[in-house]
Amino acid sequence: MEKKISIIGGDLRIVKLAEMLVDDGYKVYTHALDTARSLKQNGKVEEFEKIEDAVEKADVVIGPIPLSSNKRDINTPFSEKNISLEELFSKINNKLFIAGNISDKAYELAEKNNVEIIDILAREELAVLNTISTAEGAIQIAIQETERTLHGSKVLVMGYGRVGKILSKMLFGLGAKVYCEARKTSDLAWIRAYGYEPIELKNLRQYLSEFDIIINTIPVLILGEDYLKDLNKDCLIIDLASNPGGVDKAVAKKLGIKTIWALSLPGKVAPITSAQFIKDTIYNILNERNNK
Amino acid sequence: MEKKISIIGGDLRIVKLAEMLVDDGYKVYTHALDTARSLKQNGKVEEFEKIEDAVEKADVVIGPIPLSSNKRDINTPFSEKNISLEELFSKINNKLFIAGNISDKAYELAEKNNVEIIDILAREELAVLNTISTAEGAIQIAIQETERTLHGSKVLVMGYGRVGKILSKMLFGLGAKVYCEARKTSDLAWIRAYGYEPIELKNLRQYLSEFDIIINTIPVLILGEDYLKDLNKDCLIIDLASNPGGVDKAVAKKLGIKTIWALSLPGKVAPITSAQFIKDTIYNILNERNNK
Amino acid sequence: MEKKISIIGGDLRIVKLAEMLVDDGYKVYTHALDTARSLKQNGKVEEFEKIEDAVEKADVVIGPIPLSSNKRDINTPFSEKNISLEELFSKINNKLFIAGNISDKAYELAEKNNVEIIDILAREELAVLNTISTAEGAIQIAIQETERTLHGSKVLVMGYGRVGKILSKMLFGLGAKVYCEARKTSDLAWIRAYGYEPIELKNLRQYLSEFDIIINTIPVLILGEDYLKDLNKDCLIIDLASNPGGVDKAVAKKLGIKTIWALSLPGKVAPITSAQFIKDTIYNILNERNNK
Amino acid sequence: MEKKISIIGGDLRIVKLAEMLVDDGYKVYTHALDTARSLKQNGKVEEFEKIEDAVEKADVVIGPIPLSSNKRDINTPFSEKNISLEELFSKINNKLFIAGNISDKAYELAEKNNVEIIDILAREELAVLNTISTAEGAIQIAIQETERTLHGSKVLVMGYGRVGKILSKMLFGLGAKVYCEARKTSDLAWIRAYGYEPIELKNLRQYLSEFDIIINTIPVLILGEDYLKDLNKDCLIIDLASNPGGVDKAVAKKLGIKTIWALSLPGKVAPITSAQFIKDTIYNILNERNNK
Repeated sequence: MEKKISIIGGDLRIVKLAEMLVDDGYKVYTHALDTARSLKQNGKVEEFEKIEDAVEKADVVIGPIPLSSNKRDINTPFSEKNISLEELFSKINNKLFIAGNISDKAYELAEKNNVEIIDILAREELAVLNTISTAEGAIQIAIQETERTLHGSKVLVMGYGRVGKILSKMLFGLGAKVYCEARKTSDLAWIRAYGYEPIELKNLRQYLSEFDIIINTIPVLILGEDYLKDLNKDCLIIDLASNPGGVDKAVAKKLGIKTIWALSLPGKVAPITSAQFIKDTIYNILNERNNK
Repeated sequence: MEKKISIIGGDLRIVKLAEMLVDDGYKVYTHALDTARSLKQNGKVEEFEKIEDAVEKADVVIGPIPLSSNKRDINTPFSEKNISLEELFSKINNKLFIAGNISDKAYELAEKNNVEIIDILAREELAVLNTISTAEGAIQIAIQETERTLHGSKVLVMGYGRVGKILSKMLFGLGAKVYCEARKTSDLAWIRAYGYEPIELKNLRQYLSEFDIIINTIPVLILGEDYLKDLNKDCLIIDLASNPGGVDKAVAKKLGIKTIWALSLPGKVAPITSAQFIKDTIYNILNERNNK
Repeated sequence: MEKKISIIGGDLRIVKLAEMLVDDGYKVYTHALDTARSLKQNGKVEEFEKIEDAVEKADVVIGPIPLSSNKRDINTPFSEKNISLEELFSKINNKLFIAGNISDKAYELAEKNNVEIIDILAREELAVLNTISTAEGAIQIAIQETERTLHGSKVLVMGYGRVGKILSKMLFGLGAKVYCEARKTSDLAWIRAYGYEPIELKNLRQYLSEFDIIINTIPVLILGEDYLKDLNKDCLIIDLASNPGGVDKAVAKKLGIKTIWALSLPGKVAPITSAQFIKDTIYNILNERNNK
Repeated sequence: MEKKISIIGGDLRIVKLAEMLVDDGYKVYTHALDTARSLKQNGKVEEFEKIEDAVEKADVVIGPIPLSSNKRDINTPFSEKNISLEELFSKINNKLFIAGNISDKAYELAEKNNVEIIDILAREELAVLNTISTAEGAIQIAIQETERTLHGSKVLVMGYGRVGKILSKMLFGLGAKVYCEARKTSDLAWIRAYGYEPIELKNLRQYLSEFDIIINTIPVLILGEDYLKDLNKDCLIIDLASNPGGVDKAVAKKLGIKTIWALSLPGKVAPITSAQFIKDTIYNILNERNNK
């Protein structure tokens, strides 16, 4: 049986994904990837002028990750075309649609058009794998923005969720002195078992002045004025948490503490690896459906 | 305020625990630890002839871990005394009682006597910390029972739960080639992120003949005849799963495959460290109660 | 006894060094560091208009690292002053002079003026410690200049000298698949013992097409046209070897292979850590002299 | 061209070596391995009654490692036969003879009989690879003989030579807190670069009371009474140094400090891996001779 897939819109990772799918033997039908040069040269991906033609031959349609930035149109950085969510869903009925960061409105439109929709960014394995790129991006920033080596530096990782785990592992692998802040006693036990220094949130304050770098992964404002003023003035803060982040940036600025707010690192740091992870996750999804 | 605690029965870890509590400034009142030589020499622990005298001065009573091996009497390897669960609970009413592996019957007796009871082995942080001793015990066996170095050996860890995680980390740290078997796509993603080779259960068979060592952590029989006969005859199996274990030992024996069933490693491998972890967990428990 | 030291010229690392010496309780007398703002604010370092005044009170004089870039004048980026080697040595007679990369001419001048001279860059411990910064700088470049994560990438480190050793360790710690090329059988044994994949130079060719990144540390041209044309077009080459480097850059460019020649990373990547290492090495030198 | 090799005497590692050579396609002719059961079952190794018949067909003869324990006869644990060094060398003239720990007398006899002789234990790569087994053996002992986990224990490695390097790496990989004692400033720099805690010999004393385990690799008595009496009474000492070792065992015993003197670990801990390393080294030797 021939393997076929359709792709509508998307950024550089989706372009790379299309190439990888071709390498794996897929026929790939695209729409709104018309200015992606590498795909044209590749020759094995077929671009269609109309959505309906691009999706006609396949049962599975891949959309942008994230699907939309303005809640109205889907993301199509490799095309001049403008495609509204309404238009998209009206033309892919009865297909399986896989995209990222799906809004409530998109879910409604999908249901109305009998489109089965899967938010790939809600898949746990993709979230785990993406921490690898996020951690490397944070490490690049840390090397670049300090006048010290990470090796031998005291680095505090705030939060021991997915990003905290892999970031701690990599920092440790580089020779940093890794401290992890967490609340749960079981997280503190894991931190100890992995060989990092566990710090309970309630005791954090007494350590603050020692750190060369703080990397926050918790989407809650913890580093407010009372904490920030205890920091060494040379300390670099990297905030990986999404809006509003975990650092009072205004106060940090006032105190002269360099703070870098780094979001969406996977796509920026490693688009090829990100595409690889997306591909593996799509295969998992298709696999699970076949085995049902 | 003076810190006081009572201890009734228990094994070598409890003896070590008593000494550590004294070092931390506790007054420790014991019963049924009368033959523990180090405690006598120590002189700072007070042994009482009657339970009621030992528990009278403290609000918290530590019992054996596990509490009972025969479901009738509590474990008292450091005493000739025989103490039934009934007797114990009738004499510690209104106290907080902390022990391990508490049976339903013990919970009932506790309730009847108005004893608040906490099963310390159900605490997640202790389970996590105990994986450290379990993993080291498994590593000791693996070095001892094979004619190869672990460094460079292909080792399969079956299951990526608590023990699987720390065991994989340590094996990797020694230079083994670590493969982890798991079912969930998110576990497989973690395995990849930590740098081990992920193997889905459904693909396990094709790898079986390559392994020098297999360490099972899953309490479900997976390694039955069909799997075992594909193994290299030199392969060592270490089964860390509790009864009935994950390996068909009769078949393994018939096939001439060396299998070692290693249970309850923490207390055997590292009683002092185990006592330390128990102490830290008790402190967490008391801490949480004080902060309520 | 009061600790005193003189410093003549030097770059940002020397400025940081001066501050650290002050923090350690030294009196520091400088010349040709007049535009170093942090030193002025610091107030504990005394700048003199004349070399002879700056060196008069101390027995040990620290010079630039490297001493000179044009073989005529010493390096004084933090001053408008021009100081020839002749002038310098004529004014520091009978002192111990410590600087870096000392030319034959400088050695002659030193001898003529009865100056004992030590090339700190020839100290093995400093060379070892500087590999830490070099390795981190290479890692930063590798993350930045590729579209993949280092984690999971196949990285070839050419040469298993000082930089090769620490670079391999850090790449491995990040989760890269590390291959090391060496000639000596004992180096290949070390590579294997540390857990990387050893490749003999004579077998290198058969692996070339697999690498995502190649980092060269050997100051001999090995990657000529015959090797370069076997590389994957996406492969990134980072050349850490000093002039002429280990890569035929013209051919690499012609073949469309991205090559980055990264020299003198320690001072650029981590001036504070570099200053720390210089300080530790100076202390070792002074220590050894005191113990003679 | 057919690959042929002769083997005279030797222990379990030599038996395993013979099997591996057969697996690699060699014809193997043996003498004085007559009671090695696995070789008989194997059927691909030809045992001869007379030395001269066993060595006749091959240009390379492998002897015992070590060659002799009593300086008179060669080691033949897998045979009742007694073979003196004289007899051996008189019957292998004009061959290349590879064995281990060759005495001056053996060199003389070899020269007299025109036998080219190579001491394989003098090969640097074999010495490096053997550190892997030695380190694992030491780790097994450390887990077994203490009541603590290595994870979290403070372990002092004395000496940063070959064994010290790999042992430190493995202990660190298990989660121990690794301290390395060395004299040379460059060794101390390497220790720091690899992430362990460097301790200069002259400062050792102030740390002694903290260690849970001390592993000595230096063949010079350092741990005499003055040092030993500063140790924690629970501290375990493992002495890996050959006669007379690095620990005053009589004093240690008097002080009640448990000391284990562990020699010749590679052959005991991992005979198969040791055989593999011997084989690789023999191939290197033959390779180098062919390329001359």
